[in-house]
Formats: sequence, structure tokens, C-alpha cells
Amino acid sequence: MEKKIETTVIAPSTQLFVGRSLLTDERLRPFCAALRTVVIADAALEQLYAAALSKQLQADLITIPSGETSKTPQTAALLLEKLFQLECGRDTLLIALGGGVTTDLVGFVASLYMRGVPLLLIPTTLLAMVDAAIGGKTGVDTPYGKNLIGTLYYPKAIFADLDLLNSLSERERLNGLAEIIKLGLVYDAALCNAAHQSPVSDVLILQAIQGKASIVERDPKEHSLRRILNFGHTIGHALEAVAHYTIAHGEAVALGCLAESYLSHHLGYLSSADFAQITELFRLFPLKLPKGYSRKGCLQAMTLDKKRAAGEIRFVLIDKVGHALPFDHNYCTVVPLSAVETTFDWMESRFL
Amino acid sequence: MEKKIETTVIAPSTQLFVGRSLLTDERLRPFCAALRTVVIADAALEQLYAAALSKQLQADLITIPSGETSKTPQTAALLLEKLFQLECGRDTLLIALGGGVTTDLVGFVASLYMRGVPLLLIPTTLLAMVDAAIGGKTGVDTPYGKNLIGTLYYPKAIFADLDLLNSLSERERLNGLAEIIKLGLVYDAALCNAAHQSPVSDVLILQAIQGKASIVERDPKEHSLRRILNFGHTIGHALEAVAHYTIAHGEAVALGCLAESYLSHHLGYLSSADFAQITELFRLFPLKLPKGYSRKGCLQAMTLDKKRAAGEIRFVLIDKVGHALPFDHNYCTVVPLSAVETTFDWMESRFL
Repeated sequence: MEKKIETTVIAPSTQLFVGRSLLTDERLRPFCAALRTVVIADAALEQLYAAALSKQLQADLITIPSGETSKTPQTAALLLEKLFQLECGRDTLLIALGGGVTTDLVGFVASLYMRGVPLLLIPTTLLAMVDAAIGGKTGVDTPYGKNLIGTLYYPKAIFADLDLLNSLSERERLNGLAEIIKLGLVYDAALCNAAHQSPVSDVLILQAIQGKASIVERDPKEHSLRRILNFGHTIGHALEAVAHYTIAHGEAVALGCLAESYLSHHLGYLSSADFAQITELFRLFPLKLPKGYSRKGCLQAMTLDKKRAAGEIRFVLIDKVGHALPFDHNYCTVVPLSAVETTFDWMESRFL
Repeated sequence: MEKKIETTVIAPSTQLFVGRSLLTDERLRPFCAALRTVVIADAALEQLYAAALSKQLQADLITIPSGETSKTPQTAALLLEKLFQLECGRDTLLIALGGGVTTDLVGFVASLYMRGVPLLLIPTTLLAMVDAAIGGKTGVDTPYGKNLIGTLYYPKAIFADLDLLNSLSERERLNGLAEIIKLGLVYDAALCNAAHQSPVSDVLILQAIQGKASIVERDPKEHSLRRILNFGHTIGHALEAVAHYTIAHGEAVALGCLAESYLSHHLGYLSSADFAQITELFRLFPLKLPKGYSRKGCLQAMTLDKKRAAGEIRFVLIDKVGHALPFDHNYCTVVPLSAVETTFDWMESRFL
């Protein structure tokens, strides 16, 4: 792809730019023209990109401490307070510069400030580019679980600058890779090839972004198809909760995808061959149940899962690599507790 | 209207029921069927309606202290915490029972909990029926001003039971009346007849609700026409802010409508005859600038007004009773500071 920039409009009215050298690209400026601009960036990126970007756009700069522990209602309240202190109006553009924590948190703040101000996302990690920044979900974590408070709010534009991935750590690369493979498992088998690429090719990154965008476009409010994106996350989120978010999201999702693939296999939907292929896809990941793990804690965390209905835990299941089971347009189903227990047995025997 | 119930669908997908004896009407139950239900009510209504309603619907009941001082991010956080403690899922229906404070606050909470749970509004005051409950605006107040944090979120249904108005205080009646007259001034002159009715007739209440609903339908996100609903509120909100919300909303809006009518007249848009007619409409209202009033404080509060653009204060103006000036589809305009000062001179000379 090199210098070529792919642009497209994704649901409902977000312009998406994917390419290289986007931070200094002329296409960025029109979004900031005539609007006061505030850049909110991960503090770790201040010297690397944020200071230069805010100077270039004549914008105010606010930084937030790195890490998932920043993604709280308290940090959101602090950011809102800073925007009031800066006397920002409804015509202020917020730019989020950072990983998924930053895009989720700043998106949340943008949706609440004066009932919504214009928003632009510049994801700086693979995870944020292919997942967090796409689809309008914003949110913060609570002691009861991840993303349990949030909104659906769409940015004016997303600038996915692939050059920013050069400085990524291996852990960060795996976080993004886990989401690409997950999308491969439920929707587009070709994406699973990303597991064998290092770094992941521009072509597959673009394909992952477009794949997620097309799912969101068909079901923005997650009443149906969009639920498939939660594959691996029912158990993955529970693992993060019991570990108090000290486990990397990609590692939790990798473990969750394996466990929920096992569940799909155990329930008779997924063949042994496909299950074996899936275990191979995650072989690069550190696969270890986190400190603080307990089955009871996980089951408790899952009772607050957002897919839950009428008090029962529901799972997304797959019947082959690249295809989630539709279950009459629900794209998830209630699973007997005994099957969940068997899945935990399997997971503990392998990864404890 | 008596026993007859008017039902209609308002933007984007809210069912509206206006009539009598609605709290026990069979049309309420289908919304709660198959969903866990939590009623969140103004504490003052617990014995009057809330306990019976939640029993009838087999719902949990949470009460919130009466008054605008409850409409804060802190109360919203407490309500979210209670919903987590009750282990509510995304399939929990929230029912707001109360005045505008309750419908705004519970709407805000419903929009945030797990990124949005189904919501039903039962406004119990004239103000909430004709204004707060209609149009999807949710919000909480901050020390910087009213409703500065909020979302746009639409309920599944609104039940406006006119029987609930029988127990309303005179102050509450005037709060609603001020909004009906305001809507009359900017949109539908016939509504101004409400000023001469006590109590306001069912027919005019329905007409006010439908008037506001039709404006919201044409411009849900307040990019254009919907701004006319802010008439009287630029100054009205500032008065509430300097009085720390101890002045009744209706009194602040009455003063604001008078001041902004004076401004429209002073700028040459509104005739002396129409201005005289407008002063007559508000003669039942206690028209006194609140304790804590200062011109400087008001001007400062107005700089955070949500209509503000590029740092300038903008006003909705009228050119006759029943018509707001379109100003090239902006429905508001920047006004010279000298004209604002003159308006404050006039207001202070009459109402200080």
C-alpha cells in the first residue's frame, strides 16, 4: 500500500483513512479548520507524536496516564472538568491519539460533553486500528467489569496511520493480532493468515478494518450479527476482570478464543481438525491463566456480561474457521452450565 | 379528552401515549413483559404512585431525592452502582417516574448502563410532559451550568398521564406553563392561550407535546430548527446558574423569555404591540431576579452556553408571537454585546 491512502465512509457517517504518513497529511487539516481543537493523548506518546501534532494543529493538549487503569469513570470526569476549565464549547473538536484505552475513553467523553462534540480518532496501536476505533463503541471500566458504562458514538473521521505501528511492542502487536484472528474465526477465514505474518501486512490490516466496519454497518446496535465480535470475549473479559486488568487484552482474548472454540467443539459444532487448526493459530501467544484466576470469580464476572439475557450466560459459537453460528439471527446462544464447567476444566488443565 | 388515549409514534421510534388513567392501563404492561424492570422514581412520589406501580409491574424500586440538586453526575454514578448491585443486564427496562429532573437523570443513566438499556418515561409534571420527556435529551448539571453533561437517547415509550397533574403545586404548574408559552412564542401562537387557562386544557397540553415532537422529528440533533426551543433559555439558564438552581425553572424561563423578547424588540425585529402582548402572557409569574443575581455572573455563565460558537454568545430571536427568525437555517444569531447589556439594563430596571 505504501504511500497510497485508502479512504472510505463507514457507518453511519465516519470517514476512514488508512495509509502512511497520515499525521502530517493534508487531509487531516480540514477537520480542524474553523473549530477549536483539543488533542487528548496517551501520556507515553507526548514526545513521540502528541506535542508535534497539537502544535501543528494549534490545538490544546491534554494527556492521560497510560494503561487500562486509566479507563475509568473517574478519568472521564477529570477530562470533562478540564474541558470546562478550557471553556470548550459544543464546537470544539476532540482528537483522541492513542490505543484502545484512549479512543474508548475520549470517545466516551466526546459523547457526553454538552451532549456530544465532534470527534476524530487517531489509533496508534494495531488493536485500536482494527478493533477499538471501529464501530462507535465507547466506554469505561468499573469494578463490575469492562466497558460496563459507555455509549455508542461515531467519530467524524478515523485516521489509521500504519507508520505508527513501527514503534509497537511485541505485547501490543499480539493484542491487535488476537482481534484479527478472532475476526478471522467468526467472519473471514483469510484473516487467520495474520497469525503467520510478522509484522501483519498492510493488506490484511485494511481487510480486518473493512471486515469489522461492514459488520458494524449491518448491525450498529448489536442486536444481531455484531454479536459475533464478542467471540472469545465472554471468557476473555472474565479473565481480565479476575486479574484486575493486569493481563494483556490480547492474551485474554487468545485464551478466550481457545476456550470458546473448545466449547464449540465440545457441543458438537466444530470439528476436531478445525479446533486443532485454531490452537495452532495462537501458538505465538503467552497462554497462561492470569494471577488471581479463579473459576468462581470468572463465572461471577460472566453473570454481568452484556450479552446475558434473562439471567443466563450466552456464548457466540463457531462451526468452522471463519463462520459463527447464526442461531436464528441471535448469533449467540445459552449454553448448559455443565458445558461451561467442562470448558473451564479443559482450560485449567492446559493453561493453569 | 377524558378517557380517550391519543397514541402516536415520535422520532425516531418512541411510542407516545397521552391520556388519563395510564398508570394502570393495559398498554403499559407489554413494555415490561419478558424484561426485568426497575422503576426509578422521585422519592416524593414513593407513596403516591411509585410503590403501587412497581408492585403492579413486579419491578424493583429505586428512589432519588427530589429537586434539581439531585441532577448531578454523582447521583447518576450512584444509580449506575445500584443497577450493578442488582445485577441488571442489558435486557433490564428502566422506568423513570417523576418530573424533568427524574426523566433527564434516568434517561442519562439508561443511555450509559451497558451502553444503553430500554427506557420508559412516565413524566409526572406538566413541565416534564410538554418539554423534558420529549426529544431524547438527557443530562446532568455541573457547577459550570445546567445539562452540560448528557446524551441524546430515546425511550421506547412515553406515558403522559394527565391525571397525575391533579396533585401539582402552583409552582410546578407555572414551570410547565412557561415552556408551553415559550413554544407558543417561537412556533405556534395558539399555545399562548395556555397563559389564560387554569388548569391548562388537555387539548393544549396535547398540542404542546405534538408541537415539540414535530420540531424534534425535523431536527433531532439540534443543528437547525430545534434551536428555537432554547428561546428564553440563554438568559434563563444563566439566571438559574447564578442562583445555584434555587429559582424555579419556570420563573427563570419566564424572565428569560421576557428579556429575549425585549432583545428581539430592541434589535428591531419585534413590534411594540407584540412585545406588550408577551409581557401580558407572563403576568401570573413571580418575576423577580433571584438571590445571588449579578450581571457579571450571568454573562460568565452564558459563555458556556451550548449554542455558543467561536466564543460568541448566540440568541434565538422572534419577529412576532409564534415565529422565530430562521437566520439562514441557523435559528440563532450573534448579538452585539451592547445590545445584551441594554437587555440586562431593562431586565434589572424591572425585576431587580
